[in-house]
Amino acid sequence: MTPPAESDADTGLLSPMWAGSPAASATSDTAYLRALLDAEAALTRAQAGLGLVPEEAATAVDSAAGDVSGFDVRSIALRARSGGNPVIPLVADLTAAVGAEYGPYVHRGATSQDILDTATMLVAARTLDLIGADLDRAARTLSRTAAVHRDTPMPGRTLTQHAVPTTFGLKAAGWRSLVLDARDRVTAVRRGLPAQLGGAAGTLAAFTVFGAGDAPVDTQALVAVYSRELGLAEPVLPWHTLRTPVADLAGALAFTAGALGKLAADVLTLARTEIAEVSEGSGGGSSAMPHKANPVRSTLIAAAARRAPQLAATLYGALVAEDERPAGAWHAEWETLRELLRLAGGATRDAVELTEGLRVHAGVMRQHLGLTHGLIVSERLAAELAPVLGRARAKELLTQVAARTHTEGRSLAELLAEEPELKDLPLDDLTDPARYTGSAGALTDRALERP
Amino acid sequence: MTPPAESDADTGLLSPMWAGSPAASATSDTAYLRALLDAEAALTRAQAGLGLVPEEAATAVDSAAGDVSGFDVRSIALRARSGGNPVIPLVADLTAAVGAEYGPYVHRGATSQDILDTATMLVAARTLDLIGADLDRAARTLSRTAAVHRDTPMPGRTLTQHAVPTTFGLKAAGWRSLVLDARDRVTAVRRGLPAQLGGAAGTLAAFTVFGAGDAPVDTQALVAVYSRELGLAEPVLPWHTLRTPVADLAGALAFTAGALGKLAADVLTLARTEIAEVSEGSGGGSSAMPHKANPVRSTLIAAAARRAPQLAATLYGALVAEDERPAGAWHAEWETLRELLRLAGGATRDAVELTEGLRVHAGVMRQHLGLTHGLIVSERLAAELAPVLGRARAKELLTQVAARTHTEGRSLAELLAEEPELKDLPLDDLTDPARYTGSAGALTDRALERP
Amino acid sequence: MTPPAESDADTGLLSPMWAGSPAASATSDTAYLRALLDAEAALTRAQAGLGLVPEEAATAVDSAAGDVSGFDVRSIALRARSGGNPVIPLVADLTAAVGAEYGPYVHRGATSQDILDTATMLVAARTLDLIGADLDRAARTLSRTAAVHRDTPMPGRTLTQHAVPTTFGLKAAGWRSLVLDARDRVTAVRRGLPAQLGGAAGTLAAFTVFGAGDAPVDTQALVAVYSRELGLAEPVLPWHTLRTPVADLAGALAFTAGALGKLAADVLTLARTEIAEVSEGSGGGSSAMPHKANPVRSTLIAAAARRAPQLAATLYGALVAEDERPAGAWHAEWETLRELLRLAGGATRDAVELTEGLRVHAGVMRQHLGLTHGLIVSERLAAELAPVLGRARAKELLTQVAARTHTEGRSLAELLAEEPELKDLPLDDLTDPARYTGSAGALTDRALERP
Amino acid sequence: MTPPAESDADTGLLSPMWAGSPAASATSDTAYLRALLDAEAALTRAQAGLGLVPEEAATAVDSAAGDVSGFDVRSIALRARSGGNPVIPLVADLTAAVGAEYGPYVHRGATSQDILDTATMLVAARTLDLIGADLDRAARTLSRTAAVHRDTPMPGRTLTQHAVPTTFGLKAAGWRSLVLDARDRVTAVRRGLPAQLGGAAGTLAAFTVFGAGDAPVDTQALVAVYSRELGLAEPVLPWHTLRTPVADLAGALAFTAGALGKLAADVLTLARTEIAEVSEGSGGGSSAMPHKANPVRSTLIAAAARRAPQLAATLYGALVAEDERPAGAWHAEWETLRELLRLAGGATRDAVELTEGLRVHAGVMRQHLGLTHGLIVSERLAAELAPVLGRARAKELLTQVAARTHTEGRSLAELLAEEPELKDLPLDDLTDPARYTGSAGALTDRALERP
Repeated sequence: MTPPAESDADTGLLSPMWAGSPAASATSDTAYLRALLDAEAALTRAQAGLGLVPEEAATAVDSAAGDVSGFDVRSIALRARSGGNPVIPLVADLTAAVGAEYGPYVHRGATSQDILDTATMLVAARTLDLIGADLDRAARTLSRTAAVHRDTPMPGRTLTQHAVPTTFGLKAAGWRSLVLDARDRVTAVRRGLPAQLGGAAGTLAAFTVFGAGDAPVDTQALVAVYSRELGLAEPVLPWHTLRTPVADLAGALAFTAGALGKLAADVLTLARTEIAEVSEGSGGGSSAMPHKANPVRSTLIAAAARRAPQLAATLYGALVAEDERPAGAWHAEWETLRELLRLAGGATRDAVELTEGLRVHAGVMRQHLGLTHGLIVSERLAAELAPVLGRARAKELLTQVAARTHTEGRSLAELLAEEPELKDLPLDDLTDPARYTGSAGALTDRALERP
Repeated sequence: MTPPAESDADTGLLSPMWAGSPAASATSDTAYLRALLDAEAALTRAQAGLGLVPEEAATAVDSAAGDVSGFDVRSIALRARSGGNPVIPLVADLTAAVGAEYGPYVHRGATSQDILDTATMLVAARTLDLIGADLDRAARTLSRTAAVHRDTPMPGRTLTQHAVPTTFGLKAAGWRSLVLDARDRVTAVRRGLPAQLGGAAGTLAAFTVFGAGDAPVDTQALVAVYSRELGLAEPVLPWHTLRTPVADLAGALAFTAGALGKLAADVLTLARTEIAEVSEGSGGGSSAMPHKANPVRSTLIAAAARRAPQLAATLYGALVAEDERPAGAWHAEWETLRELLRLAGGATRDAVELTEGLRVHAGVMRQHLGLTHGLIVSERLAAELAPVLGRARAKELLTQVAARTHTEGRSLAELLAEEPELKDLPLDDLTDPARYTGSAGALTDRALERP
Repeated sequence: MTPPAESDADTGLLSPMWAGSPAASATSDTAYLRALLDAEAALTRAQAGLGLVPEEAATAVDSAAGDVSGFDVRSIALRARSGGNPVIPLVADLTAAVGAEYGPYVHRGATSQDILDTATMLVAARTLDLIGADLDRAARTLSRTAAVHRDTPMPGRTLTQHAVPTTFGLKAAGWRSLVLDARDRVTAVRRGLPAQLGGAAGTLAAFTVFGAGDAPVDTQALVAVYSRELGLAEPVLPWHTLRTPVADLAGALAFTAGALGKLAADVLTLARTEIAEVSEGSGGGSSAMPHKANPVRSTLIAAAARRAPQLAATLYGALVAEDERPAGAWHAEWETLRELLRLAGGATRDAVELTEGLRVHAGVMRQHLGLTHGLIVSERLAAELAPVLGRARAKELLTQVAARTHTEGRSLAELLAEEPELKDLPLDDLTDPARYTGSAGALTDRALERP
Repeated sequence: MTPPAESDADTGLLSPMWAGSPAASATSDTAYLRALLDAEAALTRAQAGLGLVPEEAATAVDSAAGDVSGFDVRSIALRARSGGNPVIPLVADLTAAVGAEYGPYVHRGATSQDILDTATMLVAARTLDLIGADLDRAARTLSRTAAVHRDTPMPGRTLTQHAVPTTFGLKAAGWRSLVLDARDRVTAVRRGLPAQLGGAAGTLAAFTVFGAGDAPVDTQALVAVYSRELGLAEPVLPWHTLRTPVADLAGALAFTAGALGKLAADVLTLARTEIAEVSEGSGGGSSAMPHKANPVRSTLIAAAARRAPQLAATLYGALVAEDERPAGAWHAEWETLRELLRLAGGATRDAVELTEGLRVHAGVMRQHLGLTHGLIVSERLAAELAPVLGRARAKELLTQVAARTHTEGRSLAELLAEEPELKDLPLDDLTDPARYTGSAGALTDRALERP
């Protein structure tokens, strides 16, 4: 075994909810380092494109920035303390790597926040692409599940109690609807992620003097080329303290974790030993307890869903950023946003596995419809008996009979059949839970039409 | 209406951030009561429209539900404890008010959550309309402010320190940009707010049996008519546990409070006694300290911005709602969403007053540009002197001269003028902070083009 | 008192989790108004006690402040907007009520925050007393429950699956342990709640000049007497921006809601239709579904537990309060702390009812121990069979037999009895879940010793 | 440079607020791994001490567990996914390392949560010790600062405006008071941190059967010895779902971050370019802007204080943990608590540096007392003039004169001296801000008595 590179390196020991996931790789220190270098290289290239720096400088920066292994991320992390952000030591190292001649063209005119914000958007964009694809994949699986179980009846549960029947198809269609809502939000936010370029106080002033000749520098063109180089949207204004992109990420990611958390909460409930209407494809085992098949994927998604909202709150709070660049609000965003990307990314990975592996026990569902001795359709009977018996008498009878189902252990159908007034009613039909699923099938069909 | 018993009625004593605002009225207990009654009336009307209940029943319910003063909100609140929500006692009271003949048509087929969710969306829609209008109004005011101060130079501040010059116009344009971002998010969410109708477990089953004749009930039509009656969007699925609308509200409202919080944070900073570059139109006074003019509007907006993110977190957390209707997640939303609507609504009201009354002291801004003895343009000089002196010598000179500005109390321009090598440079021009605002003007113009 | 204008008065319509509770009354606008008046009266009395104001003034203020009905809380709430806090208009009204002669002695030397912070501590103290008493009451009930069910076996559940047996006594003892932890935290915080007195910037300067004669004013004595009058602790320093008392309240109240939330989560699980090992004494019913008995008390506690942590976060965040008195951090505390007091108070009330009414179905618990066909004791068998069969063979046999219990529907005891090697083992005993509860009884006994 | 061990290892790149701090080392993956191994070793030792396993087994486990470099933390992290926690693969690796003979004694009777909870408490204890020591050190520094500046007058600021004078000594004494409050809370929580031992469902059942001979196993003694071995408190009950220790950590750590956040907020304000009453010892510089000395330590503390409350909220929320061991609530704690320990630890480290390096500019403070032309003592004059002029006339005069100070740029003392009625008053004295600091000195003295 390679001993841990050194004592403070984290590799996800406490985060099974995202360790080893594509989102984890896309948000690692190394991924951020790469994105920081991408931003620096794009800046010099954009300036070269406008004739503000020599082409050779852009080539030199590209070359040095292209090799992430030339940088010591741990050293940069430690030296970040002094100035409060990692861009300062990174620029020093990159300048040294580029060499004496072209080093002065590194980071020219930029402020640390230009580079870190841009890198963050790159990392976010790359991670959202992964998340979006996984959400789509989970939605496709859930389409199949919902279609297959369009007419699989099961108890509808409200406030933990059996209420009226529903179908597993409708439930799966609801999960899919949330997954698609998440995908739509992730996609919309991803499309708008902007590059950042403003210079020390957001006026772009330094870009107009550094390397400028006689002609005025077209800063708008500079921002446009820089953004295009990076594949990010072009911002109207520098957004050092206009943090809409970060807040939008917060909302979309908290939504994603929460949407998947609903799915997980349902699976955790339905997988309980006593309920067992679904089970995870590969439940986590226990050596001492061979019967245990823990719903691990749901558990980890549930954990992510518990954490994400508060991380989002920190990011919404960071909208309150004073001045042209703030003392603290910005710094509070970095790790928070990364963790949120990871939680959403890990939960999405787990949701793919969960939905693809989910085993549905339709027979158990059917059997549970009988647990209340038929009372699960009492709502229907109240409606159907009223025209026959009058509303008051119908209610009275049902209440009385409901009590007897428990004490006598007999079914509602059986007890009602003893009432002479009801002899003409198709009681078998009226008390069959599977025939009281309302518009569940039609709703499922309609929901599945959404692309 | 019986006035609330004194002991537990709240009238906003602890909430100057929203007491007395239009948003407060739009979200009061009475406003919710009205919306609940609106939902009940719309449901009966929609059923009458489809021939499921007699027209007379719809008229009777409309009439009873139309008079909010016929209901005792305090009594309903107290009786809500037993079943855990206010719809149960409200339906009892409404049924009684409608009378024996048509009472049975009240709430037919619905579950409490259908009515409370729908009422919440009505309240939210009405409040978002107020907020949207106020955001638009604040944006218009900020347009004027930004245009007037397009070329008003002031210190750009980063990490609390003077960095390079900026303009007040650019700052105001940034505030406006956030206000418009908030307006866009509020408007988009408002447009999508859906009615809720699903029955006990979201299958719409009860609507297919209550009052149905021979023809099958078209529940899709029912939902469509019901939604249209209420002016809300038609949902694809019942969303009892698919809480996208509530999460979207959380995001838009937390964003609004945070966006205004940025504006308030800037005003609080710029209004400090030592800075005094802006002041609120009508600062709150102090009898004992006649000189004090507290920035009260900003203070209250800042307080709202501190509270909103955590309320939004609770709502994002409530996405995790098990089963067909949940035991707790839903109940946690009610007061939380109301408070968030109020905070955003109150903050928007205050932002209108703040922006309309804001006094800008351009002369003080100009004067503060000199506080660092000219060092606020050292970035520019580093760029301009490099070609003349060489990069290393330029930096050395600037560092040395910077130290002397402090110890000798002389300006950078003065000290540099003593350097023979620089005698041909237009030092007055190069050291004038007002001439180093970069693209601030152009950025302001461009930002103001956004409608 | 003028009754609040209908339009904005809240009476708890959206808060069944606390509406009508003692904590709600103890934290109403009227209760705050009373506490504010108590603080003003105590201040004048304390000054009179030190000879700084005439005794007659103290009497006059006492008299006017003693009649809360003489003040219009709604009007005060609305006028609070201008200066940003309710004390400013309250002082105006109280001064008017006291009359021309002694009016000038009202609020003398104090700042608004002195009075509002003190009133908040009074309200908190009164509410914590109620909460503490209810926690004690719930703990006593749980003592009895735990003792009665000391040896009632039930499935121990981990990650939603049956793991090994436990007892209901141990579970109830655990709930009690959390309730007592909450009581201890509430009691400790309550004891330390301090009065607030500092004057405009916390130096107590005004008290040294207003009404002072030749002798220097002993401000320490003033603070001591004021605190004693109010029954609050004497602070070492004014704590306008040293918010330890508020943070401590946040922690204790969030803990209380969370501790009760654990109890509620367990009841919600155990009360599920399929599990039904406990039920609430008076479940909330449904007219259309007579079989439903919703666990309403648990539901409302669960909702409170979902909201409290984020409210506490806002209060912890308000520790960051700049200067001598802050612009926003303080204002963000008011409604947040009140809501937290209400949620904890309401949850405690509901916990009393829940624990007192809880019905425990020991027979169902016993029956569920058999749901896994005996596998719930597989951990024990792995230990007991190893010495007989060897560790590897024991594990292999158990895994194989475990699979057969499912497919053949036979019990572990039955299947193991067929193994000749095990014929000498007391298999009935070893596979009896009720005999594998470990130290549950002893742990229960020990836990119940805690007073 | 060593390339990062692999793509997902984090070394603190985004966390200058704690990277490289002692708390970071104390909470690294490696530190957790060590603590996990410590817990496993202590468990076997405790069982050996009671004669439940051979002494040789304890020695073998001790030896294998003592060498953290024998374990591949990254591999464990990745394998943790399957069962949802890192203890499962760790036990496999430790068992293999111990070898065939004694491997079976590894982890005997324990559940994963026993080991991970215990390890977490060990990590927390070690980190709290560091934090406590740093808080003490900061408090000692602040004692000296407060004593030195006991009589250094400065403007007291409320709602961002000059109110009345205060002293820097009183401000520093207030900071110290918060630091000591944090230390007390950290110390109290640290003392109570318990070991965890309960077995699969908290009954300790497995410990009574594994390796037990004829005599019943004294599980209480087992827990006691195990706890003592680890230097942790002995729990009364297993606390798998009684999360008081974690909630207490949340409260103490959020308090610590917030308390230091108050200090940082004050420094950030006072270090502003326009105020400049204090500066950080070694402000972070900017190459392009040589005049900038950013308050970096305060900035990073401020960022930590913005993040901590929401992390604490997640932990308070995790109190709601269903069953005997929960599916998600527990998993949500791990990374959240670690990050909170790091933020508090990093902020404390920064607070030590900040307080030790803080430069106080008493002359600037003195000068700012004159910024309001003397109006900063208007409160005093209102009190002093009333007996001479009558209350109404005094107020009128002050209001009128206050306006003239602004328009005429003359001081209050000067303008009042023109009033014949006031000629006998010692106006120089009465208008000297330095003589209106009330009890600031006495309060400082008293606060510094606290040990």
